[in-house]
Formats: sequence, structure tokens, C-alpha cells
Amino acid sequence: MLAPTRLEVSGERLSATYLLIGDPADAPRRAEAICIEQTIEFPADLVPDDDIRGHVLGRVEGAEPVGDDATRVRISYAVETTGFELPQLLNVLFGNTSLQPGVRLVDLSLPDSLLERFPGPRFGIPGLREMFRASHRPLLATATKPMGLSADDFARMAGALALGGIDMIKDDHGLADQPFAPFVDRVQRCAEAVRAAAERTGHPTIYMPSINASHDRLDERVRVAIDAGAGGLLVLPGLTGIDHMRYLAASTGLPIMAHPALLGSFVSAGQGGVDHGVLFGTLMRLAGADSSIFPTYGGRFSLPKEACRRIAAACVVPLGGLRPCFPTPSGGMTMDRVGEMIEFYGRDVILLIGGDLHRGDDLTATVAAFRESVEV
Amino acid sequence: MLAPTRLEVSGERLSATYLLIGDPADAPRRAEAICIEQTIEFPADLVPDDDIRGHVLGRVEGAEPVGDDATRVRISYAVETTGFELPQLLNVLFGNTSLQPGVRLVDLSLPDSLLERFPGPRFGIPGLREMFRASHRPLLATATKPMGLSADDFARMAGALALGGIDMIKDDHGLADQPFAPFVDRVQRCAEAVRAAAERTGHPTIYMPSINASHDRLDERVRVAIDAGAGGLLVLPGLTGIDHMRYLAASTGLPIMAHPALLGSFVSAGQGGVDHGVLFGTLMRLAGADSSIFPTYGGRFSLPKEACRRIAAACVVPLGGLRPCFPTPSGGMTMDRVGEMIEFYGRDVILLIGGDLHRGDDLTATVAAFRESVEV
Repeated sequence: MLAPTRLEVSGERLSATYLLIGDPADAPRRAEAICIEQTIEFPADLVPDDDIRGHVLGRVEGAEPVGDDATRVRISYAVETTGFELPQLLNVLFGNTSLQPGVRLVDLSLPDSLLERFPGPRFGIPGLREMFRASHRPLLATATKPMGLSADDFARMAGALALGGIDMIKDDHGLADQPFAPFVDRVQRCAEAVRAAAERTGHPTIYMPSINASHDRLDERVRVAIDAGAGGLLVLPGLTGIDHMRYLAASTGLPIMAHPALLGSFVSAGQGGVDHGVLFGTLMRLAGADSSIFPTYGGRFSLPKEACRRIAAACVVPLGGLRPCFPTPSGGMTMDRVGEMIEFYGRDVILLIGGDLHRGDDLTATVAAFRESVEV
Repeated sequence: MLAPTRLEVSGERLSATYLLIGDPADAPRRAEAICIEQTIEFPADLVPDDDIRGHVLGRVEGAEPVGDDATRVRISYAVETTGFELPQLLNVLFGNTSLQPGVRLVDLSLPDSLLERFPGPRFGIPGLREMFRASHRPLLATATKPMGLSADDFARMAGALALGGIDMIKDDHGLADQPFAPFVDRVQRCAEAVRAAAERTGHPTIYMPSINASHDRLDERVRVAIDAGAGGLLVLPGLTGIDHMRYLAASTGLPIMAHPALLGSFVSAGQGGVDHGVLFGTLMRLAGADSSIFPTYGGRFSLPKEACRRIAAACVVPLGGLRPCFPTPSGGMTMDRVGEMIEFYGRDVILLIGGDLHRGDDLTATVAAFRESVEV
């Protein structure tokens, strides 16, 4: 019934590497099944067209055993299968395969023809270093907490934090538009307090409100933030969609800090899921994050050191023309771990300390000490 | 420094039940940590305000051991912490906790004051039954495949499928805006072919294009779909954001079919993640899905039978005033399993068969046989 088509394909391919957990003898069959699942999702013997089999169907490019119970397979896909949009790129890489047991996405390689469609971080490490006139030291960030304070309280807190000379003050990731401190009121007051403090200190501290909203209120929240003079945005791609972050990076001109809320299941999925470095490094960067927050080892979240190392590496490794993004370890960071963090992550890092800055009587003095601890 | 606030809280609380894997002796400490993590994310001893401790902080409502190595704990949160928006509701339920090892979200209970904010499925089971004049039989769905065909090919295929008297024809979930069959062209032709066929058969078959697009192209795709006369929408909340689906259900007036792409890691996360029934039942329904596609047991994806049973139950269990949603088992469904599927899922089900309908020479005749097989 179907006439053969003439496909116009460039020949450019992206590739994904999957770790298949299970008997290596099954790996060839499983790899072929992924080639189908992620593209045509149709019985291969019924495909009416050699061009589709030859160009649209995924292609196994290599396989190697990893120990006795796993196989690393690399599969390539025509770039055209992605339609050159981020949601469909993720769909090709891991859409249905995420539903199969024992398949973990551990690496990906994108050709320049695809990377060109994703400008990535607008600032990245060089841009934020320039913004904060900090050529070598780690950048410093904190959050306004706890939920339940009023907008006035948050503004006073943000002002005190800014007076200490910190670089970035973000909303706590749980702040949205709660009645305790409604978004408009909170953002306007916090932005004003931080602006006033920055004028006094001479340091260009920025306030980054959290854009965590219903789909139809996202644009309005961003407009309020920009009008209020917010210097950057906190974005939660697990809640509002990863491509919304790309859109904000491309359209607002503000630095973007990505928060990992709700994304934990991807990395912690025992024998499935997505590698930490791919998710919190490569994909966040592809989606325009200038800073990628992740839970560091040794904090409240028990991420393995090796996973943290892979995230930090993926944030800065060459990736087409995309700028490197700041790894931003968090989740129970304390003042007494600053030295250890720098030793582990290097100086191209944003140190994000929340609650621990509030120990002691003088918030501004504590922040000043934090800043002093990282000056060369 | 911080003045005590006067919190206005209604006293209404939602609750989440988590399965904590690990030594039950650690469970009380871990449960208290979740109460903090999901709300104030701040050292409890530094919270300046009794009202915040009393009302904003999560509260352990109960705990019971499950075997020797797990504990089921129920934690309640003030409804105000959600800001009455879906992304922040998910954040409260599982945002940071998703990043902690061995914490699985297994149940949730939402008070009417919160459920009222989420109208849920616009059609649900009763609405779709009325639409397709099918008071008792399972509804039938299929997809246009494979990627690589032209818009003309897809339209011819959609027309042939519709002539067989099927209820719903969706785009394959991998179709976006690829050059092989660009969205506008494909949707206009398929909608027209299905409309013409429905006029001939007298059965109100609908075509459901896939709204899988960059954030800034979502509205345009929806407009094209509506203008073309699409009768429903396929939505991929894992790719475009779960609240975007709620928005489409609330704003378009069209039936919504939810596809699970990229959501697999949530349910398959070994000792973490989200229960199948909560994700593919409760949450999809809360976000307005009239039909929730999930990979059935015994297909290509190996979901356990018990998980499928929980999804089907969560789709129809009383949930405030929300309509029940059609469980839509899929992923390698075949004609010879129709009887088995009805026996397992009952008749309140959408049977979604893709590739298997294309075995044989006459697509329309195969669909007619599919339809006949479910008539009472």
C-alpha cells in the first residue's frame, strides 16, 4: 500500500552509548531492539522502504562486554530523527528505552550540525567570571530560606547576604508562589534589597528568583523577574521541562542556574536511568545552564565521589562550540568543607551554601568570611 | 534578625507515603529529614519561628515496618506549601527526595481543597465513551508508523485505519517535526484523511497529533492541530513537562492521551522512584490525561503484572471529583492478546495496537476485525 519514499538525509549521525545489564549473549538482540524502539517502533520486516531501514532505523556501531553481566553498546541515529529540537532529541536518546529494564544511557556524542542548533550556556564559566570580576576564585552562591518567611523577611535576608559580598543569591528551590511570600512581592523586594546592597558594596551580587510555575504562568513570572531587576534565574527543569530552560537561556539574556529537583530518579535508577555526567553535565549544558546544581558526595544525598567527578568533567569538557558550565555542588555544603570542595572540584566551581551560613549571629559577617576563604 | 511571622494556613494537609529501604532503626531519623528536605530545607534548630516549625515543616503521621529492610512512612504537608500549582506540588512530594537513595513515593492523598484546583480529565471514561458512542466495549487506538514515511504516506495510512472503524489514531510518539514528514503538512493531511474516512463510515474516528516540540513552538503546534481539525492530542509529559499537559487539557477542549516517553526511570528506579500507579495513574489523571499509555506486562517492556494492576486501579479509583481516565496498555500489543487484555484490565480500557495491525494485506480489514473482536 505504501509507496517507497525518497529520504533526504544528510548522513550526519548522533550516537548514544548504553550499558545493557544482563547476559552478554542477549546483548546483540537487545541492541537491535533499541535501534527499532527509538526510531521506527515498527516490526522491521514490515518496513516498506529500504531507505527507512538504511537511514532512519538506529544502527549498532559497536559493542563491548563490561565484566560478566553487562555490555556497552553504541548506537547511532540520523540527526534528522531529532527534528533538531531538544525534547525529540531526548526522545531518540532515551524515550521508550527508559521504560526497558537494565538499559542505562551512559554517554552521547552529537555532531556539530546538531550542536549548532543549541547555543548552550549564554555566559558559562567565562561569562560569569567576567560578570563577577572573579578571574580565578570559585564563585559563591546561597539561597534565601526557609519557606514560611514573609517577603519582607526574605528581602532583609537577601540584603544581609548581599552585603557580605556573595555573588549569587537564589530563591530556595521550594519557593514558588506560596501565600507566605507571594512571588511578585517576594521577587520585587528581594531584587530591590540586593540591588541596594550591591550599590553599597560595589560588588555586582545578583538575585536569582525561582521560575517554578504552572505552564501558563511561566512567561508572567519571568517578566516580573526581569522587570524587578533580577540578575539571573533559578530554573527547575525536572518540574517545568528541560526545553523551557533552553528557551529561557536563549530568550532572557540572564544567567541560568539549573536545580535538580525531581531528576534524582534518572540517576539513581539501579540498573537503568541516565549517567550522572550525561544528565547533570552534558544535558544541562545543552539546555543552556550556566550553573548546574547537583548533590555533592558527603552531603545529605550520598552521591558517589566518582559520579560527582563525572558531572564536573562533563560540565567543562569540549562540546562543539558550547561554553563550559559551572559545576555547582550542593546539598548540605558547609563552611568547613570549602577547602575540601576546592581540592576536589578545582576552582572552576560555584560553591553553594545554604543553611550553614545562618549559624552565628551576623549573617553579613559570615558571608564575608565565606568570600574571604576563597580569595587567592 | 528575623521577625516572627504570622502564618495564615488553612490547616488542610496533603500526605505522601514513602517506602524507605534500609534498616528500620534509621527510619525515624530519615522521615524527619524528609519533613525538612521537602519544605524548609533549613537546619530545624535555626528556624526563627514556631509557626514555621508547626505549620510549614512536614509532619510524620505514621510509620510501619515492611519486612526487615523497609519502612512505610506517611508524611503530611500544608497544602499552602504547593502554592496550588502542579510543578510545586511535585516538588513538595518528591523534588529533593528523588535525589536520596532508597526513598520511593508509593502513595499520596490530596484534600479536596487542593484537588479542586486540578479539574483533571475533561472527558475521562464517560466523556470518551460518549464521544465514540461506545457504552461498554473497550475503545480502540493505533498509531501511524514508521518514522521516515512522507506526510502523504501517513495520510493514506490514517485514512485506511479510519475506514476500519477504529476510535483513535495517534501519531507515533517519535513523530515531531522531522524533514521526512514535517508537522504542519503531516497533521493537515492526516486530519483531512481521517475526517473524510469518518464521514464515509459514520464512526467519529479522531486523529491525535503528537505535541512534541520546543517550548516556544508548543502553542503554534497546538494551533495548527486545532485548525486542521485534529480530534485530540498526544502529549508526552516526560518531554514537554507534566504541567503543559494540564494546560492543554484545560485550554484546548480536546481529549488528551498521555505517552510515557522518558518517564521509565521514575518507575524502574530500583529502590527509589515513584510507584507505577502513582505516576501513570494518579499523576497523569491529575494532569488531565483522558487516557494514560503505559507498557503492559508481557509486551516489549516487561512491566510486572502487579504494577499494571496498580496503574489500572489508580486510573479509576475515586479521586475528589476527577473523572476516571482510561488505562491504555501498550508496547507490543497484538491482535491475539485482545481477549487476554480484556480479561486482565476489564472493558474500561483503551486497547492500543501499533505495528501488529500492519500484518496482512488489507489494513482496513484488519482494523475492522480488531473492532469486531471487542463488540459485545
